[in-house]
Amino acid sequence: MPPDHEPRCPVDITLATLGGRWTPLVLREFLRRGQATYSELSAALPALSDKVLSDRLAQLTGAGVIERHRTPGWPPRVRYVLTGQGRALEPVVRSMWEWGTARRDALG
Amino acid sequence: MPPDHEPRCPVDITLATLGGRWTPLVLREFLRRGQATYSELSAALPALSDKVLSDRLAQLTGAGVIERHRTPGWPPRVRYVLTGQGRALEPVVRSMWEWGTARRDALG
Repeated sequence: MPPDHEPRCPVDITLATLGGRWTPLVLREFLRRGQATYSELSAALPALSDKVLSDRLAQLTGAGVIERHRTPGWPPRVRYVLTGQGRALEPVVRSMWEWGTARRDALG
Repeated sequence: MPPDHEPRCPVDITLATLGGRWTPLVLREFLRRGQATYSELSAALPALSDKVLSDRLAQLTGAGVIERHRTPGWPPRVRYVLTGQGRALEPVVRSMWEWGTARRDALG
């Protein structure tokens, strides 16, 4: 493990990016699709209210995991696109999925 | 990625296990040492109050990541030992450390 506690621990940075209920599920949709419009996400994640979905999109955009692309014209269309840093979260999400699954199976 | 949203998403299980400020740092000590007494941890993590350290030890024990071992005799000695499930978190913590470090370097 790298040198002692940095001013802002990298694990805390990753936890903050993935934190908040439903964030991992929104991210998983992007890891599956690469990009999506708001309505595609809303249809894919019916359990999320508009407010939660908007908050998570803003959180992931702010964390550099996705980018908001606006196509000019009328009506203007907005797509959210997974960034390189977003794609780099795949091993994190997969290792968390594997550990969580083993833990859940152990609990029976 | 595995089938659709389970009743309790494995990623949420892992996030709940690692959640809470300082939890990753306490876990990192165990990944380094394998086992430790309360005072060894307290000395290694001076930034943590007694309450926070006790809470995190209870959280990690409840999550099956560490076990509390009590050696009979006087005074009774208590050690906390990393379990197999705890050791299995190493790839999760390492992948989170790597992503967080790349993210922090990208922000400069």
